[in-house]
Amino acid sequence: MKLYGYFRSSAAYRVRIALNLKGLDYDQIAVDLTGGEQRGADNLARNPQGLVPTLETDSGTRLTQSLAICEYLDERHPEPPLLPADAEGRARVRALAQLIACEIHPLDNLKVLKYLTGVLGLDETAKLGWYRHWIAEGFEALEALLVDSSDTGAFCHGDTPTLADACLVPQVFNARRFECDLSGYPTIRRIAARCDTLDAFQRAAPGAQPDAR
Amino acid sequence: MKLYGYFRSSAAYRVRIALNLKGLDYDQIAVDLTGGEQRGADNLARNPQGLVPTLETDSGTRLTQSLAICEYLDERHPEPPLLPADAEGRARVRALAQLIACEIHPLDNLKVLKYLTGVLGLDETAKLGWYRHWIAEGFEALEALLVDSSDTGAFCHGDTPTLADACLVPQVFNARRFECDLSGYPTIRRIAARCDTLDAFQRAAPGAQPDAR
Repeated sequence: MKLYGYFRSSAAYRVRIALNLKGLDYDQIAVDLTGGEQRGADNLARNPQGLVPTLETDSGTRLTQSLAICEYLDERHPEPPLLPADAEGRARVRALAQLIACEIHPLDNLKVLKYLTGVLGLDETAKLGWYRHWIAEGFEALEALLVDSSDTGAFCHGDTPTLADACLVPQVFNARRFECDLSGYPTIRRIAARCDTLDAFQRAAPGAQPDAR
Repeated sequence: MKLYGYFRSSAAYRVRIALNLKGLDYDQIAVDLTGGEQRGADNLARNPQGLVPTLETDSGTRLTQSLAICEYLDERHPEPPLLPADAEGRARVRALAQLIACEIHPLDNLKVLKYLTGVLGLDETAKLGWYRHWIAEGFEALEALLVDSSDTGAFCHGDTPTLADACLVPQVFNARRFECDLSGYPTIRRIAARCDTLDAFQRAAPGAQPDAR
């Protein structure tokens, strides 16, 4: 398989974690988001949204959207599972993942920040305020969901990593990069720290990628 | 089952479509988003994000995040399916759904528009420009993905409605409400029009809800 990604892309980071947890081999091809390569003809041909990641399977099928790719990997390579066995548990893990992927990350990604400073002419302070606002709002709810549930274990759901952890860790990485105050989210920090002890997460980290700089 | 929603919430609209396609009965409880009820204690207790929808199952489990709820319904009530049988097809449908749910809708929902006009002090023109920008960017990619694939049929994937259509129709409804120019997206319009001929979609429409006004 080939993963078209970018070392600091949160969505590509999720897929790297999933691939590593499954013990799957993959080649990485870097798409330089800061250089605008995502809007180039090559990347648009494989990903009409002009985004990363794209996963090209061994049969040549190109898959987009990180959560859809992770679910595909889980269906094709069921062990170890990224989702619990019971429908309620699966719904909880997907909801935690989507809280991040549909509520926090879309507001704080590169194209949105560029719109804020470009089209809207916001300064750095207003941009940072925006970034941190959505991190805080999302993490507050996520922390509550984690604290309130007996399903939370060493990881977001039980004692093995799931799709929720594959979303949590990249979002925490990004939040730290933008110097967000995470002191109010002890459960999020505890789970992220636990994930970071695992080889699958360590090898997926931005700094460990071939295009890191 | 009980669905806590709001007639114009895009995410609640998706879940209503899924419930109707499955032929499931549900009671609706309105959470008035314009009146701020979503941030009230009652709603926060059932949905710590302060959002809708929340689906309460007959056993009392509360599920959040519209796509996670739809997947739960599909697992618990497999017929008619909201996802194709093959892994590649499932990945495609999920990616189309997520293109809308993770890339368009999060940028154009109520809380974001409020931040733009409130905290950032944008005027109505700038707000509308923002709204239409993300619709245009997302629909351009979605149209390309639909046109380029032989998997596209009467609906987004084949000739029966899927999770992708349950996301498409509410997003088209919203785009029309904000008077976005949809002339460049004939495939999106064709599929939305086809969906609107089905009873399950008609009964899910905002204007058909008890709290519509």
